[in-house]
Amino acid sequence: MKTLRNFAGGRWQDATGGFATLYNPATEEAIARASSEGVDFAAALDFARTRGQSALGELTLAERGKLLQAMSKAIFDRRDELLDLSMTATGATRKDAKFDIDGATGTLAYYAALGESLGNTRYIVEGEGVQLGRTAKFWGQHARVPLAGVAVHINAFNFPAWGFAEKAAAALLAGMPVVLKPATSTAWVAERCVEILVAAAILPEGALTLVCGKIGDLIDRLEAHDVVAFTGSADTALAVRSNGRLLAANVRVNVEADSLNAAVVGPDCEPGSETWNLFLKDAEREITQKSGQKCTALRRVFVPRSRLAEATDELAVRLAAAKVGNPADQSVTVGPLATAEQLKAATAGIKLLRGAARLVHGTGERTDGIGAPVGKGYYVAPCLLRADEDGGAAVLHEREVFGPVATLIPYDGDARKGAELIARGGGSLVSSIYSDDEEFVGAVVARGGAHTGRFYLGSEKMAEQAPGSGVALPQCLHGGPGRAGGGTELGGLRALDLYTQCVALQGSRP
Amino acid sequence: MKTLRNFAGGRWQDATGGFATLYNPATEEAIARASSEGVDFAAALDFARTRGQSALGELTLAERGKLLQAMSKAIFDRRDELLDLSMTATGATRKDAKFDIDGATGTLAYYAALGESLGNTRYIVEGEGVQLGRTAKFWGQHARVPLAGVAVHINAFNFPAWGFAEKAAAALLAGMPVVLKPATSTAWVAERCVEILVAAAILPEGALTLVCGKIGDLIDRLEAHDVVAFTGSADTALAVRSNGRLLAANVRVNVEADSLNAAVVGPDCEPGSETWNLFLKDAEREITQKSGQKCTALRRVFVPRSRLAEATDELAVRLAAAKVGNPADQSVTVGPLATAEQLKAATAGIKLLRGAARLVHGTGERTDGIGAPVGKGYYVAPCLLRADEDGGAAVLHEREVFGPVATLIPYDGDARKGAELIARGGGSLVSSIYSDDEEFVGAVVARGGAHTGRFYLGSEKMAEQAPGSGVALPQCLHGGPGRAGGGTELGGLRALDLYTQCVALQGSRP
Repeated sequence: MKTLRNFAGGRWQDATGGFATLYNPATEEAIARASSEGVDFAAALDFARTRGQSALGELTLAERGKLLQAMSKAIFDRRDELLDLSMTATGATRKDAKFDIDGATGTLAYYAALGESLGNTRYIVEGEGVQLGRTAKFWGQHARVPLAGVAVHINAFNFPAWGFAEKAAAALLAGMPVVLKPATSTAWVAERCVEILVAAAILPEGALTLVCGKIGDLIDRLEAHDVVAFTGSADTALAVRSNGRLLAANVRVNVEADSLNAAVVGPDCEPGSETWNLFLKDAEREITQKSGQKCTALRRVFVPRSRLAEATDELAVRLAAAKVGNPADQSVTVGPLATAEQLKAATAGIKLLRGAARLVHGTGERTDGIGAPVGKGYYVAPCLLRADEDGGAAVLHEREVFGPVATLIPYDGDARKGAELIARGGGSLVSSIYSDDEEFVGAVVARGGAHTGRFYLGSEKMAEQAPGSGVALPQCLHGGPGRAGGGTELGGLRALDLYTQCVALQGSRP
Repeated sequence: MKTLRNFAGGRWQDATGGFATLYNPATEEAIARASSEGVDFAAALDFARTRGQSALGELTLAERGKLLQAMSKAIFDRRDELLDLSMTATGATRKDAKFDIDGATGTLAYYAALGESLGNTRYIVEGEGVQLGRTAKFWGQHARVPLAGVAVHINAFNFPAWGFAEKAAAALLAGMPVVLKPATSTAWVAERCVEILVAAAILPEGALTLVCGKIGDLIDRLEAHDVVAFTGSADTALAVRSNGRLLAANVRVNVEADSLNAAVVGPDCEPGSETWNLFLKDAEREITQKSGQKCTALRRVFVPRSRLAEATDELAVRLAAAKVGNPADQSVTVGPLATAEQLKAATAGIKLLRGAARLVHGTGERTDGIGAPVGKGYYVAPCLLRADEDGGAAVLHEREVFGPVATLIPYDGDARKGAELIARGGGSLVSSIYSDDEEFVGAVVARGGAHTGRFYLGSEKMAEQAPGSGVALPQCLHGGPGRAGGGTELGGLRALDLYTQCVALQGSRP
């Protein structure tokens, strides 16, 4: 059994005990163990804050971009190995594993190019200069400089590579050293990425620290100029946000929490039309990709009442094609959930939803998987539910089932109502609209915009190139209000705001 | 005695009891009373969230800008009355009162013009569009839409008019209704501003709510899409930030806290030079203006050891010209502190500083004021302290005395050391540098930038137009990291970020 290591204070460190066991979710075989016991967090943070911070601070943005480019290349060079590892260690199909690993290299490469475009400067000039005095003799300009601390990244189990890369790209480009704490259950993938990067000696000493297993009291050791970026459940997010030390020291905390993302099908969207077919294709992908374990996955599907039966039937047919099982079997299209806990939470959640909606496809129970031992593996087949009443009961807007599960909910086809239904989720990462009626789309966006971080506007015009609503592209903001955590990640240069201090410079025009 | 009223649910409401007494700080005469007892906060919030929110949401940014312009004009039309009131109710000299009242109208006018420049749109287009697909058929664009809640503004006692105006301008322009809670001791000025605006019927119903006296459980009634913007002490800021309801509902909280702002005099800055004289003039203004009751006021002055004696002597001579007393007397240049509590805290603070620095001007005790009854009024004359050891003791960097008090601290004239000394304040709103040596300035900015929200770069070139480091211009960010609260206000359009949700729009190119 593999023993994951910690990388802290510039060296690999074995834990002294307190190991958690990691399983292959497809077979329930124990494959690895992880612990941070014995790691001196105070020393690790100090090393990052001094060595890492000063080394990164001396580099220009273009030079930091070059580091990201080298990181992207080093991971890409081990792509096949990482895809295999991802399949074993996270239960991802090869396609889902690509989503994670290629997402990581792609995001690093995107920020590498952004760094290069910013050039040979150590800080980011923000916006235009502005005349403050009677003449240009008194002049103002804003700039962004790196915070003088470490960026602690607490990541979710579902994207061990991409989650690491998208957060690290922004922090490192901004000039902040990273302390990575991957979710324990799938930490092997993140550990291997760090191993590859350390072996390639890409980053300056102290720029990257890895803590596998429990985070212990690391959070309680943070200071005013550190940052915490957390991705995971709303409950854990609240605990992090309420941490007395973080509040007292005024540490910046960024949260990406799961949310009940929604799709609104417009009344103009006719069955059989290109937009309708895009909706079906996207919905199917959102339910099955990563076995529905994406914070951006679709959970609530609002369909005009008159189209509800067709949407149900056509989507059920598509979902019936899914092959659930061990990703090691090439015929499999939907892998297991990542852990026994996730399986338990998902089946419990489906039971709750069934109090307010009928199950129209799937069983909602654990199932055996193709190519997996009988009784083993955290499998649940895709589930489609349908509510009968317009708008649906509260539980459908409040209980997120983190698995291959979505609920069709009828509504009257009114844009205002569609926006209200989006809002009932209490804040989402992404909402999609399927319509070619600009007025309808505009009205949903105007009223629903405060409740979502991103709108994916499905239409005839973009159908051919549409990647699906679940993809968090580096160019666009990733983060939503309210229950989605209120965070902001990605979105080009915006991602660096979290790791920099905006400074107004007032003086004579330079 | 005047009884302040609350404006909630679209009508003026008298409190039912529980009044706090407001005093003229120059004479200790009781002049007014204030309470929010009996005001139905739930109904007031509901009225603002429904009526106020929808009315503002229907206006374009240009139309909201027109509202701000009308607000600015209405307050300006009552300028003389408000200046008189400010002098009586806050202890400001006429000059200090102008700083508050004219700051309010100026900031409103600035955001009015900004709104007009944004034009006939209901949301703010942010940044350039970006191609997301193989061709422009799949396209991304960011926009900002108003949050679907209320903006609760908890203001400090020192700027009752400007504090109200600078926060309200940003929230209203963004499209969010405002609930104003001024500090009780000087609330009369804010109440009168609101009275003027209500009488002029400028704003839609529900767009502005005023709570005088205690805030009670209003904060505990906030929801996910509300915002709290707080200005005041770090202790109260921590209490607001730690509020369980705000954490659980993930309410955005913006904090501006007092900080130990610093000035660094460069080694090139020769006594008698234009830059040296600017430094002295600014330092004098920062110590005496508003009797030092500004969150941006200068507290720590770092002077090269070889110039310490000259700086001390010249500044002491300037401070000796101050006439401390009742602003009703026209010869007076420095008014009283705002309350008995502030006087007590300031004299206690000076005692503490004297443990680490010598008092070189002033007494550090309450004094009688010109034109005020003997033994009455919260007067403390300008105080200058001087530390002997390079860098000074910790208390000089940690204890803020919110009065006409600053400490001269010697250092070796090295830029790196200057930046380190700025950082010892734990985060400041503003730091100033007095130097004509671009290399020195650049080095302090690069190393100190993470620890300050604004740099005021005093030099020969800008001296003639320099307004002083304490002015928070609407064009430039106001807010600093760490102990300064980590907030962001003003800074042009940046101010609207707090009140809006950034939304990524992905679809066909519009």
